[in-house]
Amino acid sequence: MARVYNFSAGPAVLPEEVLKEAAAEMLDYRGCGMSVMEMSHRSKVFTGIIETAEADLRDLMGIPENYTVLFLQGGASQQFAAVPMNLMKNKVADYIVTGQWAKKAYKEAKLYGDARCIATSEDETFSYIPDCSDLAISEDADYVYICENNTIYGTKFHELPNTKGKDLVSDVSSCFLSEPVDITRYGVMYGGAQKNIGPAGVVINIVRNDLITDEVLPGTPTMLQWKTQADAASLYNTPPTWGIYICGKVFQWLKAQGGLEAMKKINEDKAGVLYDFLDQSTLFKGTVRKDSRSLMNVPFITGNDDLDAKFIAESKAAGFENLKGHRSVGGMRASIYNAMPKAGVESLVAFMADFEKANK
Amino acid sequence: MARVYNFSAGPAVLPEEVLKEAAAEMLDYRGCGMSVMEMSHRSKVFTGIIETAEADLRDLMGIPENYTVLFLQGGASQQFAAVPMNLMKNKVADYIVTGQWAKKAYKEAKLYGDARCIATSEDETFSYIPDCSDLAISEDADYVYICENNTIYGTKFHELPNTKGKDLVSDVSSCFLSEPVDITRYGVMYGGAQKNIGPAGVVINIVRNDLITDEVLPGTPTMLQWKTQADAASLYNTPPTWGIYICGKVFQWLKAQGGLEAMKKINEDKAGVLYDFLDQSTLFKGTVRKDSRSLMNVPFITGNDDLDAKFIAESKAAGFENLKGHRSVGGMRASIYNAMPKAGVESLVAFMADFEKANK
Repeated sequence: MARVYNFSAGPAVLPEEVLKEAAAEMLDYRGCGMSVMEMSHRSKVFTGIIETAEADLRDLMGIPENYTVLFLQGGASQQFAAVPMNLMKNKVADYIVTGQWAKKAYKEAKLYGDARCIATSEDETFSYIPDCSDLAISEDADYVYICENNTIYGTKFHELPNTKGKDLVSDVSSCFLSEPVDITRYGVMYGGAQKNIGPAGVVINIVRNDLITDEVLPGTPTMLQWKTQADAASLYNTPPTWGIYICGKVFQWLKAQGGLEAMKKINEDKAGVLYDFLDQSTLFKGTVRKDSRSLMNVPFITGNDDLDAKFIAESKAAGFENLKGHRSVGGMRASIYNAMPKAGVESLVAFMADFEKANK
Repeated sequence: MARVYNFSAGPAVLPEEVLKEAAAEMLDYRGCGMSVMEMSHRSKVFTGIIETAEADLRDLMGIPENYTVLFLQGGASQQFAAVPMNLMKNKVADYIVTGQWAKKAYKEAKLYGDARCIATSEDETFSYIPDCSDLAISEDADYVYICENNTIYGTKFHELPNTKGKDLVSDVSSCFLSEPVDITRYGVMYGGAQKNIGPAGVVINIVRNDLITDEVLPGTPTMLQWKTQADAASLYNTPPTWGIYICGKVFQWLKAQGGLEAMKKINEDKAGVLYDFLDQSTLFKGTVRKDSRSLMNVPFITGNDDLDAKFIAESKAAGFENLKGHRSVGGMRASIYNAMPKAGVESLVAFMADFEKANK
């Protein structure tokens, strides 16, 4: 068995320890005589799995009692509809559009009310986060929406927008659990698991309790009402049990690493290796304005499409997978989530340095 | 490692061969150096997995080109809303209510139009399938809806209703791939994977192409429009990749068993062992009218609650898991899906015979 360094933007690398445990428990989870995939979601054993997962997540993030944790399905894309369906009482919401996913969320919200784009960085291919310290927040906005880390473009909000008292809704799919957060600054934080937490097919919503109500838009499917899921502790119907099990293992792995303060240091250190190299390279350069750089997704280019293609081919042959950038940006992108070891980034940088020498 | 006989109604037993393969491939799927959970859903390797899964399913069921196969999320419960949102052009639909899940689907459809209950077996705790040969189908009905196998009550439609030309929509969650079907008699067939196919978190829809349109109800979330998913070959956003991978393995296992004709014989034989025992027992009896019996879910009782409880406790201690019946029916229920070996049912019957002798 030879593991590659996998720089996929998502689904993405998982901790090897987690995979080994999952393999070992596959036919018989801790003496219960069955796989987690075969287990009733209402069984005592699975109840233990989901309750431990939630408790560990609350512990990691410091989530207080007045926030509810939901394990859902359908990806962030489904929350693009669920957010307005659950929150648009005034039918007005302000969107800050910093990439393709924020834009999709904004367009979906227009199906349900007056979604307004109050800031964007589309003018420069979303390569920076706009100044959000004094935006024209709508007086009757039900919420202000951001995508906090932009996977495709490699940008991150390093300061949350000044929402002028409105509730902040944030899609954190690609920075979930990468550093500590103050959840009390958010009304809703949610993200797909398949980048930094677990397998595809699980979305985690963390919602302030007063935002979970019966007053949803007419026609909201029962499954998309957060209250349905909150009242049933995410067990209204069969949840994605395997995915929740793996997420739970990742939460325990994160605690073993020292929690989110420790992860932040590790991630800064790890991303620093790559950014430092890019900043001194005469061949490669990052595409993102320095003040907006993500610790998770690092897009870079040589400025020459043929050379980019050569780099992608040669790096793949050398065991570095999924370095091709998103088609809307081109070039390369290294996604270096929590589970990517520092050794992976160091190996990549060594390979890039060799490539630079060979292609002067 | 000691595997139990797991009679769970879902999530449910999977073929041991499938679990062993999944464990062996966990850290390195066929030499690609990563787990299927870590793989981009747009990678060549995953494309191979989902395309092979679809081809095998089409082969098993004989699905013609004018039907589309969709791998979705959210469970059958989410399709309870998606069905009317996608199909209710006239805002009228006829529901045949043969159990709790059909009833939930019927109630959900009322959010979107005039859903009419045209037949029900609620008068006798859903213990039979009503005669559906000449129902008062609404002239302007957009479709006629059934839940084909009723997991909780252990009933199955052995003849499809006469829909008088209207499109039939069928939830087959608990009988999916248990026997051959003529898909051309359906407009839409769909089911959650977690009973007879794979892990929770995957729903498979098989939809006749002309029913996949842009004309959905206003406010239908993009993710719930079948056309969104059909146009993107189930890859509009990140699908539940691990679940699809396991479903694909089960499809291959079913082909190795001889396909659905063979499965039908195996299932009739296997269920026959239990029904034959019930029919001659002086202690246990089945709760379902004989002409409506399911091959997949077999509820039975002693007629004495204390004795039922004693049986459930003793059977569990003997390694028969999840025999407790649904709270709305009481008693016991053995779910004996495709992956339950005949030896499991034979062992159960032997245990029941011993219990009967000991408790005369």
